[in-house]
Amino acid sequence: MPGEFDLIRDCFSHPVHHSDLGVGDDAALFRTAPGMQTVVSSDMLVAGNHFFVDADPTLLGWKTAAVNISDMAAMGADPRWITLALALPTADETWVRKLAAGFRTCCETYVVDWVGGDTTRGPLNLCATIVGEVPFGQAILRNGAHPGDDVWISGWPGLAALGLRSLQGGVKLAGDWHELCIERLHRPVPRVALGRALRGVASAMLDVSDGLSGDLGHILESSSVGAVLQEAALPLLPLLNACNDAAAARDALLGGGDDYELLFCAPRERGAHIEEIGHRLSLPLTRIGRVVTNPGLWLQRRDGQCAPVTIRSYDHFSG
Amino acid sequence: MPGEFDLIRDCFSHPVHHSDLGVGDDAALFRTAPGMQTVVSSDMLVAGNHFFVDADPTLLGWKTAAVNISDMAAMGADPRWITLALALPTADETWVRKLAAGFRTCCETYVVDWVGGDTTRGPLNLCATIVGEVPFGQAILRNGAHPGDDVWISGWPGLAALGLRSLQGGVKLAGDWHELCIERLHRPVPRVALGRALRGVASAMLDVSDGLSGDLGHILESSSVGAVLQEAALPLLPLLNACNDAAAARDALLGGGDDYELLFCAPRERGAHIEEIGHRLSLPLTRIGRVVTNPGLWLQRRDGQCAPVTIRSYDHFSG
Repeated sequence: MPGEFDLIRDCFSHPVHHSDLGVGDDAALFRTAPGMQTVVSSDMLVAGNHFFVDADPTLLGWKTAAVNISDMAAMGADPRWITLALALPTADETWVRKLAAGFRTCCETYVVDWVGGDTTRGPLNLCATIVGEVPFGQAILRNGAHPGDDVWISGWPGLAALGLRSLQGGVKLAGDWHELCIERLHRPVPRVALGRALRGVASAMLDVSDGLSGDLGHILESSSVGAVLQEAALPLLPLLNACNDAAAARDALLGGGDDYELLFCAPRERGAHIEEIGHRLSLPLTRIGRVVTNPGLWLQRRDGQCAPVTIRSYDHFSG
Repeated sequence: MPGEFDLIRDCFSHPVHHSDLGVGDDAALFRTAPGMQTVVSSDMLVAGNHFFVDADPTLLGWKTAAVNISDMAAMGADPRWITLALALPTADETWVRKLAAGFRTCCETYVVDWVGGDTTRGPLNLCATIVGEVPFGQAILRNGAHPGDDVWISGWPGLAALGLRSLQGGVKLAGDWHELCIERLHRPVPRVALGRALRGVASAMLDVSDGLSGDLGHILESSSVGAVLQEAALPLLPLLNACNDAAAARDALLGGGDDYELLFCAPRERGAHIEEIGHRLSLPLTRIGRVVTNPGLWLQRRDGQCAPVTIRSYDHFSG
């Protein structure tokens, strides 16, 4: 008779599409294509820190895969293979089946093979490692921003942060906005097609997980440059429609994480091409500022005045 | 002023040797050689389950790397790149520096590049993912054992289990044996050179992490075969010298995990070559039994009688 451990492990057995060996041996086997660089990243999600303890397991499974796949998008890489290691306080088979289903759905959506992992007893913890490919030399790093580049953001960042604040009772959202913001919080959409399209176009890129200003700070620091954001250019409208509170909207946009939109810099002359990419992908791409020589981050208000932006990001050791 | 989070992350910055990009961006970048398969495995270690909460962080760092590197050895693969994701209850910089030092020492010993990871707040949890390479088609899987093959084990399995029992007060070890057994428990030695040497020689292989009989059971099940172990052939002598208790010695050998020795099957005619490998690596390799057609695992006693062995292994959901 199989133990609980085997039952749980069965939830993780599934076919692989572009791998030579999946779950079940000491390791998985696959081949990267000639001329490609391998791209690897790990993300760990902890109950009570990255998600509520009573989170819907299906959505949690999706999100665990999505935030890892987003790291590939942020490099301009194609996500290809993923492992999931999991600590569980109890062997709740129903819960694990739902988690596995959500994880698998996200993997299938992005044509990622789930090739392995680990299952053990312990406080709830989900650690995925994603492996991808990118043509040699074409990965988009954080350190390539140049003075004069435009700063761009995809989608409507800040909706997930409003969703979280709404759940916490800190803000009241109008009409159907609550549902939409919660959806953005629980089911982030990794921008894989956009990341791929920006190879050879963007000079620096990352995915916004900890907040736009803090994450932009990582690019600026890595690239030894500064940036000026234009308040009038920020995609604040959906946030204002949702919460009808200018301060909360700006706070969600600049400081809120969890949207996994792509933040990137690109030479000004690539602007038309970038707009064309956004049109093709039906994804809003907004030019929100420009890279400057002086280190630091400023916000240029509608009246033309510039004020320094305190670079904030979610610190898992103080948040 | 950097936050605690940045201080911790600094502990993880270090040079890489055979990678294009290490820690610090959204993902790491490296290239696998032409004609190679990529090999990937994850292992999660949880406080109170896989190690004592007050474990020496330097040794814990070593072990976290070692158990992952051992998964590459178990495939006959060369370990090359590793990530470490880490949840910490508090940002104790001294503790983390020691953990990082132990992890790095093990990586450097096996020429593995530590290329990335994640750091977050949560109940103590260490999740490493190892990436390796093996020439195409030469990985040694679990499913290749054939009736007539010999069953082999490397080293002196069971010493780590005796060390654990000694710490728990369940057994008293003679002379310096306590030190040696504790060393085996805390600083397992992945058998990378042996794994590599057994490419094209072993028909099936894995590393003993959960107990020899349970892990042999995985090979037998995957290969749809059985095995008969010969009691007289088991490498019990060091265990008997250590604990002077025949039952405890046999229990440690067959049921004890945590040694990370390699358990493998090989055609009888490769015996001399395998002995030569052991001699070259100064590593005892012991032929402990043979693969048979009938499913199941038996122990042939010194008097010639055969008794079924209850296949046991450490189940993290019941142990």
